Amino acid sequence: MKCRAFHMLTVAVAIVVAWSFPAFAQTDPLPSWNDTPAKQAIIEFVGHVTEDGGSDFVAASDRIAIFDNDGTLWVEQPMYVQLAFALDRVKALAPMHPEWKDKQPFKAVLDGDMKALAESGEPGLVELIMATHAGMTVSEFSSIVTDWLATARDPRFKRLYTELVYQPMLELLAYLRANGFKTFIVSGGGVEFMRPWTDKIYGVPPEQVVGSSIKTKFVMRDGIPTIFRLPAVNFIDDKDGKPVGINEYIGRRPIAAFGNSDGDLEMLQWTTLTAGVRFGVLIHHTDAEREYAYDRHSHFGRLDVALDLAATNHWTVVDMKRDWKVIFPFQKQ
Amino acid sequence: MKCRAFHMLTVAVAIVVAWSFPAFAQTDPLPSWNDTPAKQAIIEFVGHVTEDGGSDFVAASDRIAIFDNDGTLWVEQPMYVQLAFALDRVKALAPMHPEWKDKQPFKAVLDGDMKALAESGEPGLVELIMATHAGMTVSEFSSIVTDWLATARDPRFKRLYTELVYQPMLELLAYLRANGFKTFIVSGGGVEFMRPWTDKIYGVPPEQVVGSSIKTKFVMRDGIPTIFRLPAVNFIDDKDGKPVGINEYIGRRPIAAFGNSDGDLEMLQWTTLTAGVRFGVLIHHTDAEREYAYDRHSHFGRLDVALDLAATNHWTVVDMKRDWKVIFPFQKQ
Repeated sequence: MKCRAFHMLTVAVAIVVAWSFPAFAQTDPLPSWNDTPAKQAIIEFVGHVTEDGGSDFVAASDRIAIFDNDGTLWVEQPMYVQLAFALDRVKALAPMHPEWKDKQPFKAVLDGDMKALAESGEPGLVELIMATHAGMTVSEFSSIVTDWLATARDPRFKRLYTELVYQPMLELLAYLRANGFKTFIVSGGGVEFMRPWTDKIYGVPPEQVVGSSIKTKFVMRDGIPTIFRLPAVNFIDDKDGKPVGINEYIGRRPIAAFGNSDGDLEMLQWTTLTAGVRFGVLIHHTDAEREYAYDRHSHFGRLDVALDLAATNHWTVVDMKRDWKVIFPFQKQ
Repeated sequence: MKCRAFHMLTVAVAIVVAWSFPAFAQTDPLPSWNDTPAKQAIIEFVGHVTEDGGSDFVAASDRIAIFDNDGTLWVEQPMYVQLAFALDRVKALAPMHPEWKDKQPFKAVLDGDMKALAESGEPGLVELIMATHAGMTVSEFSSIVTDWLATARDPRFKRLYTELVYQPMLELLAYLRANGFKTFIVSGGGVEFMRPWTDKIYGVPPEQVVGSSIKTKFVMRDGIPTIFRLPAVNFIDDKDGKPVGINEYIGRRPIAAFGNSDGDLEMLQWTTLTAGVRFGVLIHHTDAEREYAYDRHSHFGRLDVALDLAATNHWTVVDMKRDWKVIFPFQKQ
């Protein structure tokens, strides 16, 4: 009798232990990462900051990890996804704007003249964004984004853009969260272009997405509270805007930052160049066959100065070709 | 033998059930609230949105509740705490600014001339804020706030300001969180004046605090990444700025909003005037004996238009004198 009761107790304890013990202690939490120094650096960092009683221990509430989006979590070639969205919106809205046929930068978009579009520069780009991203309510814009992402496909892989996210980074996001981290996106992209889908795709809820924004205005319209999107820049969350955005929207300093371009330089500096264990990572696009290979001379996601500073600052450079078994979720075995 | 094993199982199940079952099902989650309609409305709302399978069920991730701070979570009389802080800072910094002795609104502060200070109006107030809240790094400002709150006391109760928080609201915050809500502060006050202490006092971490802000700038200073506070307004999170701030910083629409003044009117409209079960609350300061009694004619926290609109909009008005057993934590039995 005693023996049997003891056995039941043993089983019960075993079940409790199995439940308490994280799954990743038994199975590889990063199966799409090759066993290279990059993967080892990630595992080592997480081990240090979560080691209770260790000298590098960081309380769970302070385990803030930030991720750039374009080129860090999903593709940014042959152009930023949001730019592809803006060009499609110009085409969709053109019938209501006959004057666009003769007016740059809209003419360039409608003619498919990428050279003329490039020549319109940043002012042209801002004009495109204002014409396509403003002039509606925030919920209308959210629906437009959601509808577009449900059908638009990239020119090379012919996939939905939300399929062109990096499988190793999805595993990394999940691994960090399983270790008590709160994961944030800090992107130069438009915050309201990301929020409709980041929770579903990355597990990052809207309130943990920081990005660029245009101004908005609250009005009561026929007794219905409404927030309108205005054609004016509010905040540019890029370069030295990223630490400003982190401080303003998150309100504390991250301990880990993941980026892939010079636009992420200041965010990496702000995160890592301080006391305590910190982790900075640059994703280096080195795989022309499976994705794209680019760095110092790319129009989108240029990686130049930050790459030169990586060694001095002890940032881990992830070589996509060498370090990743697969790039996209649909390539998983 | 079987019987004993069965008994063990029963005990095990009982333990599991006891653990799973929220403590508040057995004990009152809001002990400092009298059993009045206000308390019943809170319990009823939480019951509706958490009832799995019920028609009003809201997924935990969408249970966003927002709270104004001044007058909703802590005292705002005889003046906003942040204004008391600014006045103290003017006095502390005066030796470095001999010109202030003859210059308004600083002269008024140094002379203790509240009438002259009031006459300087909003421009005067902005000048005081810029002189005391800018010109240092964000971490220096955080330390200044923390140091001041550790010793400054209010003129009436002679207590630390962080002791003058409302016990019933602390219970409400905890009750909502125990029911899967994510609690945010949405305050007209300065976000960097609140973030150093809201986690400890309210259980609201820095990234869940939305407030007014001044502009900041990132610079590398002698190789050290630094964020400086600049003397320029960035965002005013008050009145119609509150829904804008909610949309910009939180990125989704709350289902419950708690405020106490006309500054919270648009935030209550944005939260409640839409489909689905929504909950809007106004804290009405009615207890001159235990705290303060004020509404339509107060300089700080004026409650006038929003009070008139409460009935039409089905907002719950909490009468502090009638609905609260105690006001402050130190009055608990």
